[in-house]
Amino acid sequence: MPRSEEAKQRLRDEQRTHILEAARRVFARKGPAATMDDIATEASVSHGLAYRYFTSKDIILHTIAEQAFQANPLTMVQELDKTKTPGERLRVLLTGLIESRRHPEYHQLLDRMRNSEATPEELRELVHKRAHALRGVIRQSIVEGQASGEIVAGDPDQLLRAIYACLDGLTHWAEYYPEEYIEHFPAAEIFWRMLKPESVPEQSSR
Amino acid sequence: MPRSEEAKQRLRDEQRTHILEAARRVFARKGPAATMDDIATEASVSHGLAYRYFTSKDIILHTIAEQAFQANPLTMVQELDKTKTPGERLRVLLTGLIESRRHPEYHQLLDRMRNSEATPEELRELVHKRAHALRGVIRQSIVEGQASGEIVAGDPDQLLRAIYACLDGLTHWAEYYPEEYIEHFPAAEIFWRMLKPESVPEQSSR
Repeated sequence: MPRSEEAKQRLRDEQRTHILEAARRVFARKGPAATMDDIATEASVSHGLAYRYFTSKDIILHTIAEQAFQANPLTMVQELDKTKTPGERLRVLLTGLIESRRHPEYHQLLDRMRNSEATPEELRELVHKRAHALRGVIRQSIVEGQASGEIVAGDPDQLLRAIYACLDGLTHWAEYYPEEYIEHFPAAEIFWRMLKPESVPEQSSR
Repeated sequence: MPRSEEAKQRLRDEQRTHILEAARRVFARKGPAATMDDIATEASVSHGLAYRYFTSKDIILHTIAEQAFQANPLTMVQELDKTKTPGERLRVLLTGLIESRRHPEYHQLLDRMRNSEATPEELRELVHKRAHALRGVIRQSIVEGQASGEIVAGDPDQLLRAIYACLDGLTHWAEYYPEEYIEHFPAAEIFWRMLKPESVPEQSSR
């Protein structure tokens, strides 16, 4: 492609990204009920320009949901070396889930999508399904990790719920106290201790 | 007091308790903006009868906030044997904070009071102050417990934040999924593992 075409394309890509980023901020703040006008205002572009890139608000919402899913450690875990043990897999997964809360916008947005009537039905179902699948993978890893002795014994549903309480609590904390959120953000290692088996005395002490 | 007076007094006490319980449900649901009419309707009593027991909605709100504080483990910890170590104190405190989430209404109510413009300024300040004091006691116990070797090493503010993420997450979970909340409620022991020091190999293995 000639140089000027290339430059134009790059400009278009940048503009598109710019509008998406503005939309993400607006949706996180106002929920899925935010309008195309809100997005255009946030991006400091005209209503018409926004529509040139995205034919509807719902298209933008879908695109951002897709980005949020991509940012989700579930995608990552699927790429994890299959030979890893369930405990190692769970540790990578939990670390990813905690660490991704350092940028809570996507989680806040997915929360709002799940709970808002303004979310298109099809997209709401997709969000529910993905969340359900992730919970399933974590629960399965807990059960397998308990069998292999890498995860602490106990009711797997209670462990699952304890983890989700922490994750949800982090997301809400970011919403209510954004200014102090990052300063004391807890290391994933702290939460991992909920799942680690109690240390057993070393073999030499038997 | 003659028998009939006694019976009348008992009836009044029961009626008062009945109205307070209705108010607690209404405030938890609608937040501090709920009206005296909402409370009377929930209690199935007349507007006039409700006012005979409590002269204003704010009086009811104060009374319920006081009950919520009483249900708070901070009160309990002050009565704790002073000879207990900081680690033991923290464990009792954390267990109380987690277990009290099995009945999340008070916590939901305090949350709403803190964040609603409808809460009288003076009461909002009181709620903030109490919450702040509780956080202070927990943080102090973490620091002292680290010094005595009963609490895991690490940034005490991160540990504090991790605990609060869990507590807030439990309260929110109760709000969004009340039907599945109690079924898999996590044992306090699970969260306590975040604070416990890593087990060291037994002395015999040295």
